Amino acid sequence: MKVLIIGGGGFLGQKLAHRLAEAGRLRDREITGLTLADIAAPASMAAPFAVETTTCDITDRSAVDRLLAARFDAIFLLAAVVSSHAEAEFDVGMQVNLHGALNVLEGARLLENAPVLVFTSSLAVFGGNVPDPIRDWTIPNPQTSYGTQKAIGELLVNDYSRRGFVDGRTLRLPTISVRPGRPNRAASSFMSSIIREPLNGEEAVCPVEPDFAHYYLSPRLCVQNLIRGAEIDAADLGQSRTMTMPGRTLTIRQMIDAMTAVAGPDPAKLIRFEDDPAIRDIVTGWRFDYDPAKALALGLEADDSFEDNVRYYLEDDRPR
Amino acid sequence: MKVLIIGGGGFLGQKLAHRLAEAGRLRDREITGLTLADIAAPASMAAPFAVETTTCDITDRSAVDRLLAARFDAIFLLAAVVSSHAEAEFDVGMQVNLHGALNVLEGARLLENAPVLVFTSSLAVFGGNVPDPIRDWTIPNPQTSYGTQKAIGELLVNDYSRRGFVDGRTLRLPTISVRPGRPNRAASSFMSSIIREPLNGEEAVCPVEPDFAHYYLSPRLCVQNLIRGAEIDAADLGQSRTMTMPGRTLTIRQMIDAMTAVAGPDPAKLIRFEDDPAIRDIVTGWRFDYDPAKALALGLEADDSFEDNVRYYLEDDRPR
Repeated sequence: MKVLIIGGGGFLGQKLAHRLAEAGRLRDREITGLTLADIAAPASMAAPFAVETTTCDITDRSAVDRLLAARFDAIFLLAAVVSSHAEAEFDVGMQVNLHGALNVLEGARLLENAPVLVFTSSLAVFGGNVPDPIRDWTIPNPQTSYGTQKAIGELLVNDYSRRGFVDGRTLRLPTISVRPGRPNRAASSFMSSIIREPLNGEEAVCPVEPDFAHYYLSPRLCVQNLIRGAEIDAADLGQSRTMTMPGRTLTIRQMIDAMTAVAGPDPAKLIRFEDDPAIRDIVTGWRFDYDPAKALALGLEADDSFEDNVRYYLEDDRPR
Repeated sequence: MKVLIIGGGGFLGQKLAHRLAEAGRLRDREITGLTLADIAAPASMAAPFAVETTTCDITDRSAVDRLLAARFDAIFLLAAVVSSHAEAEFDVGMQVNLHGALNVLEGARLLENAPVLVFTSSLAVFGGNVPDPIRDWTIPNPQTSYGTQKAIGELLVNDYSRRGFVDGRTLRLPTISVRPGRPNRAASSFMSSIIREPLNGEEAVCPVEPDFAHYYLSPRLCVQNLIRGAEIDAADLGQSRTMTMPGRTLTIRQMIDAMTAVAGPDPAKLIRFEDDPAIRDIVTGWRFDYDPAKALALGLEADDSFEDNVRYYLEDDRPR
């Protein structure tokens, strides 16, 4: 079982690589090699199998073909230009998120044995005037270019799978919290910052009201679900390879209360509420009411409580 | 008002061109020129405005740019590789239906003023395990490559419109019946043949049972709806440019009864029922229960009865 992670340098790719190294197996087979590919060379790591790291620009079809020539049994396609970037630079988003995904699908199609392909989509595919809750049969009606490009990826993975070119599975990720690292320019950045920074003893600004609700998953469960996504029997996927990863709908207040329950009253004092209309206008357009029935039936899981998300951050990611 | 019909050589493009010639106006403006483009040079026609005909292969981006350099105010993108063809020749379907549509969108994006773009999608975007009726917020879950490519076009038209690159409108066409001309490679070809050939005094083969139900629209109403689609105010389209064109759900038996009501008992005797598993497997995967609420609210219409479809064929299309 040879595994490839495209986007292997990102925080999710790295966490997935480490989890695979701990397990040593995927789909009931021993992992014999892992390749981490990204636009910049990913960090390598210790593992009970050979680990290669390589650069690959997925917008370059010949580079993708060279990468895939090593014949992988399972491919995780995590590489993407994120939402604010794809909105600011339309052509870059189209090249990476649409044509890049197509290059990987076309490259995989040339392999002798159709590889398992786990493609990460996003709740950003949903938007506009559709009724709650968002179910497995709700139309993706994205209101961003990023969401559009991900929704197109979902359709392509379905059709390439139906035709037997790949054995694809598309998982729509909830907003990940608590995301490790530093704040970024994503509108969702505060959804991790308001927990992460106070737990690190730093101040954080919350740009929305305490009753703002959204849909979250921890990095730990996200990685567990990516692996589960790869392991599902193709026959159990039915007539669509796409599913929304389970998460939890939480208000800002509930998230802060969970942090206090785990870490005491001090971190919450480091949060300052400061209305930011630009961010508020974006995030209040997002949807938070989901019914991820298909993913739950196939064994994917949400966190038990946001207390768990806080604990996982402390255990897995807080700088020592 | 300069108008371009891409796919102007097809039966729908030709009917649309003639309807525009009769009206002389579109979106409350006088039509000053009409260009008909297709892979082979379309038939020209008499009109109260200049009519140009030209060849254009939409898979060739530079050819599309040359075509669009004449700066059109309204573009109808009807050109496509049909369902059976796109299923048999995957790469051809991808090139024409996906990359061709993208070439037109990218070419239109370069125009100084965003043109109105009417894109034709199809009920083939729907399939698989989604609940009836199919509503405006039902997920496209296509079970063919053609449907996949059309669903991708819908997403692209939405995003290019949201960004102001085009003023797009996507209309999902019901199966057109009675379609004039000869049988083609569409799996739905028989849905017109079984009416058209008998009305022409020829035999026809029906590859499915008499109780097979599907969703139909006449060419006459389809053209009327394409024009209405172009004329809707952008502000009335809301957060999606896509809608299902109204049609009528009918069984084969109801269609034949309507033909008999209009043309007497003889034509029906020319229909032979002969099971064709290849066609049956495709068309029984299609959905027939639709609620086209958005299109109806925006003034698009279905035929009053299938008797009308039969009459329209006799009036508009039967060879004399």
